[in-house]
Amino acid sequence: MNIFIINPNSDPEMTQVIRQKAQNFASGDFEVECQRVTEAPSFIETYEDEIKSAPGMIKRLRENESYFHAFIVACHCDPNLDLLKEISTKPVLGIGEASMKIATLLGHRFSILSTTPHSIPNKEALVRKYHLQDSLASIRVPGKEKRQNQSRDSYLHAARKAMKEDGAEVIVLGCAGMTDLDKFLEKNTGVPVLDGVVCGLMIAAGLAKYNTSISKIRRYRGKSGF
Amino acid sequence: MNIFIINPNSDPEMTQVIRQKAQNFASGDFEVECQRVTEAPSFIETYEDEIKSAPGMIKRLRENESYFHAFIVACHCDPNLDLLKEISTKPVLGIGEASMKIATLLGHRFSILSTTPHSIPNKEALVRKYHLQDSLASIRVPGKEKRQNQSRDSYLHAARKAMKEDGAEVIVLGCAGMTDLDKFLEKNTGVPVLDGVVCGLMIAAGLAKYNTSISKIRRYRGKSGF
Amino acid sequence: MNIFIINPNSDPEMTQVIRQKAQNFASGDFEVECQRVTEAPSFIETYEDEIKSAPGMIKRLRENESYFHAFIVACHCDPNLDLLKEISTKPVLGIGEASMKIATLLGHRFSILSTTPHSIPNKEALVRKYHLQDSLASIRVPGKEKRQNQSRDSYLHAARKAMKEDGAEVIVLGCAGMTDLDKFLEKNTGVPVLDGVVCGLMIAAGLAKYNTSISKIRRYRGKSGF
Amino acid sequence: MNIFIINPNSDPEMTQVIRQKAQNFASGDFEVECQRVTEAPSFIETYEDEIKSAPGMIKRLRENESYFHAFIVACHCDPNLDLLKEISTKPVLGIGEASMKIATLLGHRFSILSTTPHSIPNKEALVRKYHLQDSLASIRVPGKEKRQNQSRDSYLHAARKAMKEDGAEVIVLGCAGMTDLDKFLEKNTGVPVLDGVVCGLMIAAGLAKYNTSISKIRRYRGKSGF
Amino acid sequence: MNIFIINPNSDPEMTQVIRQKAQNFASGDFEVECQRVTEAPSFIETYEDEIKSAPGMIKRLRENESYFHAFIVACHCDPNLDLLKEISTKPVLGIGEASMKIATLLGHRFSILSTTPHSIPNKEALVRKYHLQDSLASIRVPGKEKRQNQSRDSYLHAARKAMKEDGAEVIVLGCAGMTDLDKFLEKNTGVPVLDGVVCGLMIAAGLAKYNTSISKIRRYRGKSGF
Amino acid sequence: MNIFIINPNSDPEMTQVIRQKAQNFASGDFEVECQRVTEAPSFIETYEDEIKSAPGMIKRLRENESYFHAFIVACHCDPNLDLLKEISTKPVLGIGEASMKIATLLGHRFSILSTTPHSIPNKEALVRKYHLQDSLASIRVPGKEKRQNQSRDSYLHAARKAMKEDGAEVIVLGCAGMTDLDKFLEKNTGVPVLDGVVCGLMIAAGLAKYNTSISKIRRYRGKSGF
Repeated sequence: MNIFIINPNSDPEMTQVIRQKAQNFASGDFEVECQRVTEAPSFIETYEDEIKSAPGMIKRLRENESYFHAFIVACHCDPNLDLLKEISTKPVLGIGEASMKIATLLGHRFSILSTTPHSIPNKEALVRKYHLQDSLASIRVPGKEKRQNQSRDSYLHAARKAMKEDGAEVIVLGCAGMTDLDKFLEKNTGVPVLDGVVCGLMIAAGLAKYNTSISKIRRYRGKSGF
Repeated sequence: MNIFIINPNSDPEMTQVIRQKAQNFASGDFEVECQRVTEAPSFIETYEDEIKSAPGMIKRLRENESYFHAFIVACHCDPNLDLLKEISTKPVLGIGEASMKIATLLGHRFSILSTTPHSIPNKEALVRKYHLQDSLASIRVPGKEKRQNQSRDSYLHAARKAMKEDGAEVIVLGCAGMTDLDKFLEKNTGVPVLDGVVCGLMIAAGLAKYNTSISKIRRYRGKSGF
Repeated sequence: MNIFIINPNSDPEMTQVIRQKAQNFASGDFEVECQRVTEAPSFIETYEDEIKSAPGMIKRLRENESYFHAFIVACHCDPNLDLLKEISTKPVLGIGEASMKIATLLGHRFSILSTTPHSIPNKEALVRKYHLQDSLASIRVPGKEKRQNQSRDSYLHAARKAMKEDGAEVIVLGCAGMTDLDKFLEKNTGVPVLDGVVCGLMIAAGLAKYNTSISKIRRYRGKSGF
Repeated sequence: MNIFIINPNSDPEMTQVIRQKAQNFASGDFEVECQRVTEAPSFIETYEDEIKSAPGMIKRLRENESYFHAFIVACHCDPNLDLLKEISTKPVLGIGEASMKIATLLGHRFSILSTTPHSIPNKEALVRKYHLQDSLASIRVPGKEKRQNQSRDSYLHAARKAMKEDGAEVIVLGCAGMTDLDKFLEKNTGVPVLDGVVCGLMIAAGLAKYNTSISKIRRYRGKSGF
Repeated sequence: MNIFIINPNSDPEMTQVIRQKAQNFASGDFEVECQRVTEAPSFIETYEDEIKSAPGMIKRLRENESYFHAFIVACHCDPNLDLLKEISTKPVLGIGEASMKIATLLGHRFSILSTTPHSIPNKEALVRKYHLQDSLASIRVPGKEKRQNQSRDSYLHAARKAMKEDGAEVIVLGCAGMTDLDKFLEKNTGVPVLDGVVCGLMIAAGLAKYNTSISKIRRYRGKSGF
Repeated sequence: MNIFIINPNSDPEMTQVIRQKAQNFASGDFEVECQRVTEAPSFIETYEDEIKSAPGMIKRLRENESYFHAFIVACHCDPNLDLLKEISTKPVLGIGEASMKIATLLGHRFSILSTTPHSIPNKEALVRKYHLQDSLASIRVPGKEKRQNQSRDSYLHAARKAMKEDGAEVIVLGCAGMTDLDKFLEKNTGVPVLDGVVCGLMIAAGLAKYNTSISKIRRYRGKSGF
């Protein structure tokens, strides 16, 4: 089985981190490839960034659809996800939806660690889109507490505040670029910490193995008919 | 005051219908211009259609932002609306949000008349995005009752069913292309029938006159700040 | 076009402030009249105050219904609004519903500035009645922070707290008596600040121009029919 | 213990039916008095009817507050209930809220039998006000099925349809005038059928005995404080 | 009339406190019996505790069903309540559901006083099960403020914080073991304070007198039918 | 990796069907064992059935916890799931929660096929517990349409009605005993059909591989601490 990860931004370093994480998780059980969208901005932060990434995302999906069995969009704001689900005949998962829905299986409420205050309302809208608003404890941005560089410790500090003040029982990493923080935070907080890339991979691999995919009769039907 | 209407599709006829309707409503109180997105598909039906229209929508907004006081996106699925709100310093209204929110001021529940069964789940997602799901009586597509050409009478038939079977008290036209049906349906049903272009215009003109606009501090802040 | 504003309380000063604000906004585009309910209390604060104002509100609506094209209830708790919608054949708007629904078009969440802690649960009930609870950031009463006279600065202070601590992106003035604060607060906070009288006027004028009104088939049907 | 029932309408017959039902339920355990509002319409159907009844309701509550231990508003649309809760220091219950909240203790979903199609949206708004919309199976009006006189059999027919087609497990009588239908319907449907007057009485008597009442600190505080 | 209270835990002291409280409230108007589940843990805190109590709860209900007219489960987490409703032909009330639903009749929002932080998410899940999440101000555990022994004063302190910081207008005692705190807290806070045992009794007695019970057609039907 | 499936009922045939399905899906990638609860009823239908199965479920989990890496409860009503999550240090998944949450990743709304009308309200309560009520198209029981034996064709008929009349885009099998229907229905309907056992396995295997588990800090903490 072969799984393709689309990194919607153009940052080669983040792409390599995601690829490494994914291959470690796959550990040879399935093949996994990760490509960035070279035409996209180096970081997806605004709605305009999302649109700029769309043509490249579509292109990569279409070029790879025949060989790969499932696709993952590796940006936690799930940019252009409805679109990719619509045009693909293979399963397409967003790391945002995958991580947050798995979080609800592991505890009463989850908190998201995010990178900028600007992202909070956008993530709130996403959480609500997925009907998860009542399972959300909080969205925490380290910089809101301390104006320091976003170090591992600042995320640990934010995670602990989410647990203590907001009632979080599970932590969700709110950016594909945080993919290496999961076990560090898990060890230091004692609660499950979910990386979206891994969460996306487990469901994508499962669906591919199960040989099922996106429903094409209405919402994600595309142009071709009824 | 000058208001600019972006028709996200490339259909010149529909553009002319919208322009005419808008100028009739403006009736000289303000200037209104309507342009289509020539690079877009002739009808916006899928998520892919929406993305294809995005670059042209951005271009038209940016080219006209200094002269016009407010912008309207004249497609009832409000394509790329968050994006335009993000990049503009002027008010931007979608005809979907404008018509549905005004509908809640006029009656207990509203029904939307739509063009294809395919659009129903997409509109449901939009209705929920605007927190309006509990004010929605139904989404009715004439073709579901009779496989005939979508005539005025088929829309009237659907509106009457919405009133009688679904409890609709207000009818919302679910496509900019239906813009000429409002008074025909209103006369024949006895309930308010709302065209999104007119609804968008009244709020856009009001906001421009009030000299206020989109909040730029978080969700629609764009790249430049915080 | 002629619009009639009913101030549900009997305070002549507040009535004059509202009238002035309305005429400034109308700026000759339409005629606007504002009258107080002389039989009502000088301030509408309790449910009993609302009832005391009802007969006078009904009387003013009925006396003026033939000449005026739309009506506005200029008290932010929208007293007796369902009743006026029921008995009128012309559009009737509350400044509460108008301002809060327009607020959702301009940002992710809004906060309401209010006059007394007592009003908070009543406003919460109103917000929920309009299905807006998930768009509400907070209701802020200056006096809760500082026991001083409710000065312009105390409202500015409350607005800033709402933006910083509650995530407000839009500010709604929670009393018709605050009608002069909008531009002062907007200038000093940088976010849109909405006065309900203006918001009511723009929709009322729009609906009157569009020649549509309240649906009379069920909820607001009154005695005469079905 | 003494309980006072206010019938918000002026119909002497309905008042006598309610009084009788209440005294039968009390069966000497407590004293119960029922008075109509002579100044009110003979049937409360519209928002205007509710307002017309308000002054008489206030008067009866105030005249009897010192002697009686609890008050019940015996109209299923709970007219002016927030107001009476606000001005009273004794418990005040509406038969709508009492019957619907008890219904949720006895089964998964309840249906309301109502008198006119006009009342359906108004009752829906009330159900939602009490946060009960997800426990509502349906609101059924016999006349919608058969245009006959609203006989006992037509209500039985409506109750059976609610059980079979809407999933109702409990039936709530949607008008104080139906107060004699409960045991007839219960015998013939096999499910609990709740009369609001009885439901109001059991909670009012319980609260009076418990010597507790409406909270007066915020929403129902009235003029005097904070 | 005879009412049976099942204390799901095995603590004889708490059982005696509950029995005493119940008999005081009954004050001879009806007979009330309270028994503990001797096979159960001495305190119900976890989901496992609830299951351990189930067989004894079932046994006590079945042994006493012919003589008693209604049953109350006297643990505020309402353990095994759906089960008892399913197997009984008599009314069965939980003190959690009874107290929280009555709380909504007395004020805008209620807060629950609880014994351990561990219980907060479990109670949140219960509150949501009853559709009461939007009426909940907060769940307060005294130990969260001060690590002292849970004295009467620590509960009073927590109640006051709930009123002041969370907007609570009614206090609900979140454990049958707090049954003696109601009037102490009521006197010192000025707001209604509800003990679940009393709330359960008033509705149970009312339903028994009304001669109605749990609906047996679907959710609580048990094995025997349809 | 080793995964243990608990079939909460005592039916050896259904256990064998589940085991076979699970081993087929695992196809040697991981070890999977399935055991029934011999002390339980042969079919879990009522709340009492669920309780009767609890001790045996606990016993099997505890006996196998050291060797196995994850556990699945293979009954679609997820009996005693909160309890098993509480007492286990390994991941525990219900086939109800797993299948319904995966369904939301594949289409706009899902329908559940179920075995008896009695199960509908119980499943509705479960769906709501998981915050999925707005993603549910319907729960369909074949016997409601035709009183025939529940054949494969009757389920196909129900699935088609769900798609056509209720807007279902994904079908969820509402009983572990239907585990062999997935590909038959998928072939004949053209939409994804999800068996809970397979859905549970893919997430359980993924979580075990990821080496993360249930959060133990609050809701599922058990007796041992804070």
